[in-house]
Formats: sequence, C-alpha cells, structure tokens
Amino acid sequence: MRFQRLALIGCGLMGGSFALALREAGLVQTIVGFSASEKTRQRAVELQVIDQACASVAEAVQGADLVLLAVPVGAMHSSFAAMRDALQATALLMDVGSTKCDVIAAAQATLGERLSCFVPAHPIAGKEVAGIEHAEAALYKERRTILTPLPQTSIHKMQAAHEVWTAIGSHVSTMTPEAHDATFAAVSHLPHLLAFAAVNALTAQPQGPAFLDMAGPGFRDFSRIAASDASVWRDILSANHAEVLTQIAHFRAALEQFENTLKQGNTAALQQLIQQASDVRSAWTLQAGNACNTASED
Amino acid sequence: MRFQRLALIGCGLMGGSFALALREAGLVQTIVGFSASEKTRQRAVELQVIDQACASVAEAVQGADLVLLAVPVGAMHSSFAAMRDALQATALLMDVGSTKCDVIAAAQATLGERLSCFVPAHPIAGKEVAGIEHAEAALYKERRTILTPLPQTSIHKMQAAHEVWTAIGSHVSTMTPEAHDATFAAVSHLPHLLAFAAVNALTAQPQGPAFLDMAGPGFRDFSRIAASDASVWRDILSANHAEVLTQIAHFRAALEQFENTLKQGNTAALQQLIQQASDVRSAWTLQAGNACNTASED
Repeated sequence: MRFQRLALIGCGLMGGSFALALREAGLVQTIVGFSASEKTRQRAVELQVIDQACASVAEAVQGADLVLLAVPVGAMHSSFAAMRDALQATALLMDVGSTKCDVIAAAQATLGERLSCFVPAHPIAGKEVAGIEHAEAALYKERRTILTPLPQTSIHKMQAAHEVWTAIGSHVSTMTPEAHDATFAAVSHLPHLLAFAAVNALTAQPQGPAFLDMAGPGFRDFSRIAASDASVWRDILSANHAEVLTQIAHFRAALEQFENTLKQGNTAALQQLIQQASDVRSAWTLQAGNACNTASED
Repeated sequence: MRFQRLALIGCGLMGGSFALALREAGLVQTIVGFSASEKTRQRAVELQVIDQACASVAEAVQGADLVLLAVPVGAMHSSFAAMRDALQATALLMDVGSTKCDVIAAAQATLGERLSCFVPAHPIAGKEVAGIEHAEAALYKERRTILTPLPQTSIHKMQAAHEVWTAIGSHVSTMTPEAHDATFAAVSHLPHLLAFAAVNALTAQPQGPAFLDMAGPGFRDFSRIAASDASVWRDILSANHAEVLTQIAHFRAALEQFENTLKQGNTAALQQLIQQASDVRSAWTLQAGNACNTASED
C-alpha cells in the first residue's frame, strides 16, 4: 500500500502528525495541504510537513488518492462541500473528528455518490498544545483509532483505512457511529464538562482564588482536562449535545444520591456509594491502545 | 526541642510516618503506640515504628510529652475521651484529621482544661495505600501542614507544633478551622465526591463496562481520586457535610449553565464558559508545599 498524493485538509496537530507518520512509514509520495490560514499553510511547508500548499480545498483534493480531513468538527460540513466535485472515486477519504454522527450527517448531506469513499475515523490521541509546530510522527503510535463506517462505505476503503492506521502504529477498532458518540459522551465529554463546571464553580465564589492556592494533586489531576482548548470543546460538546445531555442526567442522579445521604446523615449509605465507586475505579485499568495519549482530544 | 515520649494513637500510614520522621530527625527518645487492632500494634513494633505497644489510649498517653492522634475522623471523639485523664498539662497534643471543625468540637466536648494542649493539624499528605507497612519518614517532607488553633490553644503549644512540623520538612500554614473546612470542601472534598458520582453514573448504565473499556488518560486522571478509601471518605464527607453541601450547590449552578447552553444550542455562551474554566485552570499551578503528595488525604 502506497499513496501517490495525500491531501491534508487542515494543517494542525492532528493532520500534521498524520502526514509525518505516513512519510516516516514510506506510505506516501507527495503531500499537499490546505489550511484556512495562509500563514499556517506556509508554516506547514517550512516545517516540511507538506510538500506544497494549496489555495483551496478543491485544489488540494484534485488528483489525491488519500484525503485526510483534520479540521475542527464545526468546519467539517463546508470542507466536505468544497471537496465534493474534486474528489476522485478511487480516493480514500477520512476525518479525525472526536464526534462521528454529526460528521457523518455532514458527509451524507454533501458528498453524494462519493460517500462510499468516506471512512469516518477517530484516533484517540492528542496533546494539550495545538498547532502544526507540535505535530509528531509518533502521535498515533500505540493509540486506539476507531472507525465508524456507514452502510454506503466501500469495503475496500474500509480495508485501506484499517491498513493505513495499522501501518502507522495505531490499534484499530470498529464501532457504529451511535455507539461511538454514546461511549465518548460518557468517558470523555462528560468528564471534560464536569471539570470545566468544577473550575467555574470555584471561580464564581469570592474566596475562589484563596481556595485554589490550597489545592493539591487530587485537584490537579481531577481538573487537568479543564485546561483544554475552548473552541475544540465547544464544537465537540455542541456536536454531541444529545448524548452529553443524557450523560449529564445520569450524573445528576448519581450526585443526588450523595447529596441525599449527606442531608440525611446516612453514613452507611454514603460509605456504600463510595465503596462502589472505589471498587470500580480500583479495578479499572487503561486498555492498551488507549494508553499514552494526552488530554485535549481523548 | 526534643521529646521524651511520643504517644501515637492510631498506628497507620499517617501516624507511622510521623513517628519515623521524628525518629529520623532525632527529636524523640521513646515512641509508644496504641491501635484498636492488636495485630496492628504488634506490626508497628515489628517494623520498629514504635518501641512499645500499649493496651489502651490512657496507658500510651501516660507520661507522654507529645501525643499524635492519627485515627479516622470518626474515632476522634472516643480517643479524646479516653486520653483526657491521662494527658499531662505539659503535653503537646495534635491530630492529623482532614477536617477540623468536627475534631475541634470533639475536643471541646471532652478535653476540659487540657484543651489548651491541643493544636489541630492537617498535614496535606497521604498515599493511595493505607497502613503502617507504607509508612515512611519522608511522607511530610515538602508538604503543607495547616494548623487551626482554638482560642484556648496555648501559644507555647502552637509554637512547639510549628517547630515539630518544620523540623520534619513540612511547610506550616495557619488558618481558622472554618476557613480550613470551607477551603478543603471546595478543592478536595467536592472533587472527590464528583469523581465518585461520575464513576457511579457510569456503573448505573448497562453499557457501563463497555464504556469504561474505551476510557483514556483524560478519564484516568479525572477519576483517579475515585479509588480512594471508602471509610476514610465516608468520615471526611460526613464530618464536613455542611461545607460539602454548599460546594455541591455552587457546582450544580455551574453545571446548569452548561446544560442550558447545550439545550439552547448557544455555542457562543458555551465557548465562553469553557474559556473561563480553561483560562483559570491553565494559569493555576500547584503551590510549593502542596506538591508531591498523593491522592487519598489531600
């Protein structure tokens, strides 16, 4: 498997790292890139992440046998629309978005008969720092990548997608888009939202800064993900809002149980609630493939 | 400053580490210990953490010029009552509890004129593993210890307490008991409760185990404190329930703001809420003195 031309739509951390990984693995001849920012395009050339900058999505996609869409979730729809007429029937098209149902809806609304080229992908990797400067060939190594094919997705494209991610060291899983979005609402999107809310709850109090001065490593680790990028997480939470609201409801119910035992002074029930959480969390370990990645996009 | 006889009431991680640290610093001649469990007392002797095991609190405290009460918060009251008649007027008495108002109330209800000997202390240190086996002389080094004196606390005892903790490498701060409990409700007790509730919310769903399989490092760090000891945290949350309930109310208000922006599809307001949290958390750093300690008791 070797690609003639990779078109990178979005030259940031995720796209840049994919380009570097493919080049390192000898899987690609030429890499072209488009970014909405002229400056970012030029920087991607200077850093030798891409061979050539293109002035439009259509120009980049022209003649490409591999297209990676690595733009914020909110910019997927316009990117699909912009590439549609230029996309070759033989091309493999993938995204790297953290939510899948919304990206698929955008693809379905725009790609027409080219929908069969599209393999929705979510590599569970990232960094707390964004931008092409931080791109690295090893970003996807030993990380899990989830593919969520559509009924229309070509089996050959699905196989090629599997091979590409495997070739750059990622562990590939397949899920339905719905299961993907429900799962990540529960284990990633809700925790981020809770961490954001916990920090805001502190800030809302006059003593907030004094409180924060006394915070220790428990707070540090619990709130680490609250430092994530605001526009990235606005897009993720908005795109997956239905599943996130469902998870908030589950969380509220669990929180109320604690609140009730505290109000009632029911220490036996309180201990049971804590024990249940402690047992589950103590038995849990990070799965190989989910390991080693960092905060912003997990 | 050198003590003739340290009486350790409670021979666990916290008490054992204090004993080892004092011995290493050459601050004490003899260490005796009491633990409710005969087995633990014997183990403390075998491990040479204490020189002699005592069969009762009163026997341990007899003739001691330094008494450290290192029992679970829920056992403070009975321990104070048991030592009262044996406690020397010249002794320095300290606890190491994670909450202070309730410990002080127990002391006020039991100690009588010996109340002046008592300097309430909270060393912000711990480990995720409990027990005398894990005790180490360095546990309090470079950690913060907060003293919350009562109006009745002797100024000399306060000074001696400051010297002891400083001598074993801890950074000493002073707060009122009320400010202490409000602060730790906000930066430690609430985060623990939220982490417990988040894990229980997952477990309550049929897909919980499948969800957990896909969880990554964001979840790992966010939920680390949910693995904490259930009886320890039952006592802490119960003892400080009023402040914890106040913090839950602040958190609920912050959570509702997120929920409302998601329901309304107000992405601008959502981004603003995230940005606020991200800015505060990005600017925050662990204060020297709060650093390096681990989860269970911060």
